[in-house]
Amino acid sequence: MHNDTIVALATPSGSGAIAVIRLSGKDAIGLASKSFKSVSNKNLSAQPTHTIHLGHIIDGDKTLDEVLVSVFKNPNSYTGEDVIEISCHGSNYIQQEIIQLFLRQGCRMATAGEFTLRAFLNGKLDLSQAEAVADLISSDNEASHQIAMQQMRGGFSSEIAKLREELLNFASLIELELDFAEEDVEFADRTQFKQLIERIHFVLKRLIDSFAVGNVIKNGIPVAIVGEPNVGKSTLLNALLNEDRAIVSEIAGTTRDTIEDEISIGGIGFRFIDTAGIRETKDVVESIGIKKTFEKIEQAQVVMFLVGSPQLVAGSEAIALFKIEIEKIKNKFPQKQLLVILNKIDQITDADLAHLITSLSPYAENLIPISAKTGFGVEQLTNSLLNLINTGALRNNETIVTNSRHYDALLKAFEEIQKVQHGLETGLSGDLLAIDIRQALYHFGEITGEITNDDLLGNIFANFCIGK
Amino acid sequence: MHNDTIVALATPSGSGAIAVIRLSGKDAIGLASKSFKSVSNKNLSAQPTHTIHLGHIIDGDKTLDEVLVSVFKNPNSYTGEDVIEISCHGSNYIQQEIIQLFLRQGCRMATAGEFTLRAFLNGKLDLSQAEAVADLISSDNEASHQIAMQQMRGGFSSEIAKLREELLNFASLIELELDFAEEDVEFADRTQFKQLIERIHFVLKRLIDSFAVGNVIKNGIPVAIVGEPNVGKSTLLNALLNEDRAIVSEIAGTTRDTIEDEISIGGIGFRFIDTAGIRETKDVVESIGIKKTFEKIEQAQVVMFLVGSPQLVAGSEAIALFKIEIEKIKNKFPQKQLLVILNKIDQITDADLAHLITSLSPYAENLIPISAKTGFGVEQLTNSLLNLINTGALRNNETIVTNSRHYDALLKAFEEIQKVQHGLETGLSGDLLAIDIRQALYHFGEITGEITNDDLLGNIFANFCIGK
Repeated sequence: MHNDTIVALATPSGSGAIAVIRLSGKDAIGLASKSFKSVSNKNLSAQPTHTIHLGHIIDGDKTLDEVLVSVFKNPNSYTGEDVIEISCHGSNYIQQEIIQLFLRQGCRMATAGEFTLRAFLNGKLDLSQAEAVADLISSDNEASHQIAMQQMRGGFSSEIAKLREELLNFASLIELELDFAEEDVEFADRTQFKQLIERIHFVLKRLIDSFAVGNVIKNGIPVAIVGEPNVGKSTLLNALLNEDRAIVSEIAGTTRDTIEDEISIGGIGFRFIDTAGIRETKDVVESIGIKKTFEKIEQAQVVMFLVGSPQLVAGSEAIALFKIEIEKIKNKFPQKQLLVILNKIDQITDADLAHLITSLSPYAENLIPISAKTGFGVEQLTNSLLNLINTGALRNNETIVTNSRHYDALLKAFEEIQKVQHGLETGLSGDLLAIDIRQALYHFGEITGEITNDDLLGNIFANFCIGK
Repeated sequence: MHNDTIVALATPSGSGAIAVIRLSGKDAIGLASKSFKSVSNKNLSAQPTHTIHLGHIIDGDKTLDEVLVSVFKNPNSYTGEDVIEISCHGSNYIQQEIIQLFLRQGCRMATAGEFTLRAFLNGKLDLSQAEAVADLISSDNEASHQIAMQQMRGGFSSEIAKLREELLNFASLIELELDFAEEDVEFADRTQFKQLIERIHFVLKRLIDSFAVGNVIKNGIPVAIVGEPNVGKSTLLNALLNEDRAIVSEIAGTTRDTIEDEISIGGIGFRFIDTAGIRETKDVVESIGIKKTFEKIEQAQVVMFLVGSPQLVAGSEAIALFKIEIEKIKNKFPQKQLLVILNKIDQITDADLAHLITSLSPYAENLIPISAKTGFGVEQLTNSLLNLINTGALRNNETIVTNSRHYDALLKAFEEIQKVQHGLETGLSGDLLAIDIRQALYHFGEITGEITNDDLLGNIFANFCIGK
């Protein structure tokens, strides 16, 4: 199965200036030669690796397109096999015609992730690096990109591989002891071994703990915005969209109208969930609205309670209502992190603001006065949002686990290491110790792909896009 | 303006396995070198043209991505300038970070079509070839692709250029005569000149006439399907989707659910417009429906009237209704081509079918019995659709005009040529003849871009996508 020649579109589907079609396998260059007529009559097979050639893709007497063909010779390619990349004009019609031509000539349509699978099978990447490729492609903010990049460059694998090697070393010594069981020798220094197990225990614990922040970084942090319609929710969202994002919009050709609720702040993705307020009412329809607001808060990790300061200044009734609502959220969601945003402070006097802060502070620990319109206080707000996440690991460039498969394997390895630790303390015999060590090694191997099976590979690569 | 270094995404926006970012201009290689760290410490500037290099894009101490960089040195590139193509992982985030990095380093965001504009300004393409690039990218069926491809390879330009050159030749001779006006000499053989003008007249007429079919090919043929809800409209649309399309769907990862109403049959695009029927009713709502059906028929070139044969067999009332409806369409739209489709013939007996055909034929010239369900008759239907278009020019590989700018220029040139013809017949003096010839030459030059101005170029390239 894994030595036929596969073909797929490598660029996003749809119309663009150019599209890239990728072939990989032992006949890739031969098959490409058949349908490619170089403008200078070059023979593709005779060309050196990493060279580009101008010509036409010919289907019988029809010219499909003028293209650039890139030649990569094994093992110096992404997959480790011979690879051809055809850069053609970006019409759907041309893409499809060229792919169909190669399918007719004996290529097979690549399955999702099959190019990367081959790269793994040919030893170009280990399994966690291969998984990082998919993460890299789907990363949409700086933090998730940085983690995927680190993992792709082998940061995670090398940390695991190092532990695995040391552990393997001791495992061999302990198993060697078993062969000399009659003689009661100890090849493996138990003190050193204990130290290693402690170190592994420590590293595994840190990696497992990192999954919480890793998960947040990968999926974004859900923030529910609670506030009545006229308190400036959309102005605030626009203010949170920093300069970066504005430039991004320009590049992608999108306008402010299509701004999504996911905003990247300081490299972390925040998913803002708009809700109606939670003001008590006798109206049945609005009551349903309040119920929905509560449901949305349930899904969030952070609640941003937004109030307009002019309304609060206007009368004591508004302040009383505010206190009731804040208490309600706190009682109903004691686990959620709550930020209270006092908006529109540009519309009240400094004295009024000071008075508001004094009277509200007892009810709201995180009270942030802002003016979304002028931008005052918005930076403090973004800092507060970022402070809610423990990004220490991220800043220190430590390895962060974002993949639930890795997390599972790490948990299992951790369990085995704890058994080994316990075994060492209770003087468990070498043969029983060896079994637990082997189990831990097995789970380490699962992460980097030294231990694998077809089902596992199938599951992992099914999540890739076709063409990668 | 036209020698700074420009940057743009060349592949469709969105997530895919890879994306390509293109730089062009005199600093393209220098700017790329600054942010590219080759895995083997190569210096990009020292690399030969048409070579590919593996490395990382670095922004300060951050690694943005592992990429392949292709080097094209002027004049051997698409634009004729130094060009760098960066093949990166296809996440939006990475694309944007890399483009922003180059913008900060002094590149300018390319405007729509600016790469192709530069190719034109640097003499890599003439104007009609440049326009064909945009047509090629937007072509979505075989016929429009073939025409764009022919035009891009210079078929159209060379035909125009040849006429222009011959005409220019005579123009020079006639203008030379003017210098010797006193001596009454004739350098330009009037008989040969007449023959040339006749040939030009003939070619221009053919090109102008080809615009009708060219337009149809470029935009697709609108077909209104008229029929009651239960006569099998969607089954018929599915039946018209031939094998090709089924494979296409597989490639694009789309399902039958998302089939669009534009279907390519025999390389020609047909846009099917679904309508409600036109059955008379007293219901006000339905009357509005009939009005809308008529509006849709108005936009169509072909009307496909679909009836279920079991209903017709069931009683004479249905046949009477059918006759009324057919007459109504014919009276209201005498210019539209009408196909009457007798569907579901698998549900009636052969005798009933024979009887139906006999009784309906007088009312429907193009009566096609089919079973959309079994596929019977569908091929005859597609042939009938294709026969409605005069595809002779297409089959004979003749030049077809699809661009309305070319069409306008050809019409103007034609007008001037007619004046010249008239002048020759009436013995118009050489100086007046020369003016008309120069005008015709001017319009020829507009097509290939020998005559041009910034407004014209701006209009043409504004229709391109960014990155091309």
